[in-house]
Amino acid sequence: MTSSSAKWEVRAELPIHYEIEETLDLLSVDNPTLLGSVDRAGTGATQLVLVDTTIDRLYGDRLRAYLEYHRVRYHLMPLPSAEEQKTIDLVLAVASAMNEVKAFRVRNPPIAIGGGVMLDIVGLAASLYRRGIPYIRVPTTLLGLVDVSVAAKTGVNFEGFRNRLGSYSPPLRTLIDRSFLATLPRRQLRNGMGEIFKMALIKDVRLFGLLERYGAALIEGRFQDAAPPGGTAAGGGPPARVGSNVADEVIGRAIQGMVEELQPNLWEKKLERSVDYGHSFSPLLEMRALPELYHGEAVALDCVFSAFLAEHRGFLEPEDVHRVVACARSLGLPVWHPLFCDPDALGEALADTVRHRNGDQNLPVMAAIGSARFLNDVTPAEIEAAAAAMAELAPVGAR
Amino acid sequence: MTSSSAKWEVRAELPIHYEIEETLDLLSVDNPTLLGSVDRAGTGATQLVLVDTTIDRLYGDRLRAYLEYHRVRYHLMPLPSAEEQKTIDLVLAVASAMNEVKAFRVRNPPIAIGGGVMLDIVGLAASLYRRGIPYIRVPTTLLGLVDVSVAAKTGVNFEGFRNRLGSYSPPLRTLIDRSFLATLPRRQLRNGMGEIFKMALIKDVRLFGLLERYGAALIEGRFQDAAPPGGTAAGGGPPARVGSNVADEVIGRAIQGMVEELQPNLWEKKLERSVDYGHSFSPLLEMRALPELYHGEAVALDCVFSAFLAEHRGFLEPEDVHRVVACARSLGLPVWHPLFCDPDALGEALADTVRHRNGDQNLPVMAAIGSARFLNDVTPAEIEAAAAAMAELAPVGAR
Ligand SMILES: NC(=O)c1ccc[n+]([C@@H]2O[C@H](COP(=O)([O-])OP(=O)(O)OC[C@H]3O[C@@H](n4cnc5c(N)ncnc54)[C@H](O)[C@@H]3O)[C@@H](O)[C@H]2O)c1
Ligand SMILES: NC(=O)c1ccc[n+]([C@@H]2O[C@H](COP(=O)([O-])OP(=O)(O)OC[C@H]3O[C@@H](n4cnc5c(N)ncnc54)[C@H](O)[C@@H]3O)[C@@H](O)[C@H]2O)c1
Ligand SMILES: [Zn+2]
Ligand SMILES: [Zn+2]
Repeated sequence: MTSSSAKWEVRAELPIHYEIEETLDLLSVDNPTLLGSVDRAGTGATQLVLVDTTIDRLYGDRLRAYLEYHRVRYHLMPLPSAEEQKTIDLVLAVASAMNEVKAFRVRNPPIAIGGGVMLDIVGLAASLYRRGIPYIRVPTTLLGLVDVSVAAKTGVNFEGFRNRLGSYSPPLRTLIDRSFLATLPRRQLRNGMGEIFKMALIKDVRLFGLLERYGAALIEGRFQDAAPPGGTAAGGGPPARVGSNVADEVIGRAIQGMVEELQPNLWEKKLERSVDYGHSFSPLLEMRALPELYHGEAVALDCVFSAFLAEHRGFLEPEDVHRVVACARSLGLPVWHPLFCDPDALGEALADTVRHRNGDQNLPVMAAIGSARFLNDVTPAEIEAAAAAMAELAPVGAR
Repeated sequence: MTSSSAKWEVRAELPIHYEIEETLDLLSVDNPTLLGSVDRAGTGATQLVLVDTTIDRLYGDRLRAYLEYHRVRYHLMPLPSAEEQKTIDLVLAVASAMNEVKAFRVRNPPIAIGGGVMLDIVGLAASLYRRGIPYIRVPTTLLGLVDVSVAAKTGVNFEGFRNRLGSYSPPLRTLIDRSFLATLPRRQLRNGMGEIFKMALIKDVRLFGLLERYGAALIEGRFQDAAPPGGTAAGGGPPARVGSNVADEVIGRAIQGMVEELQPNLWEKKLERSVDYGHSFSPLLEMRALPELYHGEAVALDCVFSAFLAEHRGFLEPEDVHRVVACARSLGLPVWHPLFCDPDALGEALADTVRHRNGDQNLPVMAAIGSARFLNDVTPAEIEAAAAAMAELAPVGAR
């Protein structure tokens, strides 16, 4: 007896809306932005504030003074931000803190201030707690400002796989304040440049020009200068926007690019994603190389490797690849790594990505500087050829 | 300096669509329903099948025979289904199994077969894995058939709070086969009746009549009889639908009621939810009483307690409450429990629910048998009065 009878269907649409808002000097007591979404009218609830341990060390006093000035009853919880600790355990610790302050379902959204690691942890905790409560995100790294800021994604690593567990759950608001970059170590600035570099390569030739011209100076000045570093652009170079400055323009273009790519495909139903450029081989190799490579560095390596693939297909001229490599170098990003010269490791990495992309390669590659196309038939031989080209970039001692 | 400059907004809509499909004798080899969503064309992937340990014991041989007959390469993982083990640890064990079979992002959705506990665990694992993969759900308890089946929710208990961590992530398909109920212990059948009872009280007076008339017999016959138990309805009673039977109608009406209530409010943005009836005081008290009370039993207790609240407000006549209590008793559901006579415990339970409903009571109560309204101003004195009324129902020995 195999009769099939009644059938019901459920159809619904979840509307998503979130904001990314620039501000300067967020922790100045006369800047109301930070508490803008907190309902302080009489719930008596304790405001949960989660901070990166480094941010606590560098900005903890100012943050506490700010909250006290505004008479907020708060519970401040420092969270480590090592990629190795981006695990479900810390998610549960945050959920525990939410229980402790007896978090409401909607009012008093927890505020998270720090790098991408702790923002991903807090985001996942908020998305699980009571099946999802709103939260507010303040990225304090360059990578956080230009990339995590727009993302709807949260995640933690699991059994050696990057972000294997996570959710799509954007915060209510993300507050962007580049003054935090004043204390960010240079290597972390270069790390963030890895994602800006990626965006430039597949989407924004003007951004690429800005990076070639000003990238190194921006890192040098930690994105703090109001005037274009290295003087106003002269000759054939792109002029800075009037009333703006290069730091804002570079950050702004990177954010804008992410918003444009993400908005129509927030849940990644479409598996052809140009912003996955630099993220096809790197996920597995980055985890293997931990803690040696930072995320943005692994992305840059993948960008360079994939540029060789594109050159091999005839999409890029050798001069284009040369510009890509030179730009990466000027940003202090690595252009060579033994794992990216190892066809077996590269093949395995691609195989895991193919599973993630549901059986297809959907491999974004550069079609030119500033635009992308997709490949679905990259062969082991091509990977070997690109790996060999990458090997040519090895420092003399490593060859 | 508190200048606020650029601002970006992201807007998107996530379309949700899922199906609940009735079938009979799912494990019969000539019933193709179970594998209907599995892409078996050449991915070579291993099909993950998660089963309740009891289902494995009772139906494991048939299930394996079914999969082997259809030449499916499978990995069968038994999962315990005790409420006490509904924890994040088991979610991670399932995620581990997904890693082991190298689950694809979309193809070969894992299949979960069992009671609500393990369906909630597997659902959460699927929603976290790669930030969400589809899965297929086969409820095998009455509660699972009529309630979990429609739900988009997943969850696990955390730090003594029921379903404190979870997600909204409906499965691709839910397959409803009441033949599984043939082996379900009677107390579990009564447990499932708790949710049907709730639905009848706030939404479906005809369903209430069916429960009054046939409820006990349905439990007795484990929902297996094709003809209305107790003979065809005669006199003023509701006739069974033509070509159908009472078991199907009761299950069907409960599912239909859930679909109607859930579909416009899948993410519970609207916090006035009539299907929360029976779920206002019970969540905390059920956890306190573990493992004594089953979920549906705690729900029934809350239904009766809340009926007293409604009577106190004059919404219900004493005769209505009497019918409610008599019906619960005929279904073998408890109508009295010490925790539901304890105003302090009840007050605490409501306070936690108020936090969950964002600071308001939004308390669904019966407006009549078969309809609901909401209260936001229930006082401690009213709770005390209802608790005292409940105490009157105590068995003689317990008074
Ligand atoms: N959710 C997403 O879509 C998304 C997007 C991109 C990256 N990510 C994740 O973000 C993580 C990387 O983030 P990250 O690069 O910000 O690393 P991170 O969070 O580890 O921060 C880097 C270091 O900088 C320190 N730091 C942070 N702000 C500082 C400041 N203002 N001054 C001085 N030190 C500071 C931190 O303590 C840490 O030691 C990865 O885990 C990645 O998966 C997520
Ligand atoms: N996701 C939702 O929206 C939602 C809705 C309602 C309930 N739930 C959850 O469901 C859980 C309760 O589910 P439940 O009542 O199914 O309990 P359960 O999963 O614990 O199953 C009850 C018992 O019946 C056994 N069993 C299951 N099927 C059987 C069969 N056909 N024959 C014999 N024994 C069988 C199980 O092994 C278990 O011992 C709770 O944790 C509750 O939170 C979730
Ligand atoms: Zn990245
Ligand atoms: Zn329930």
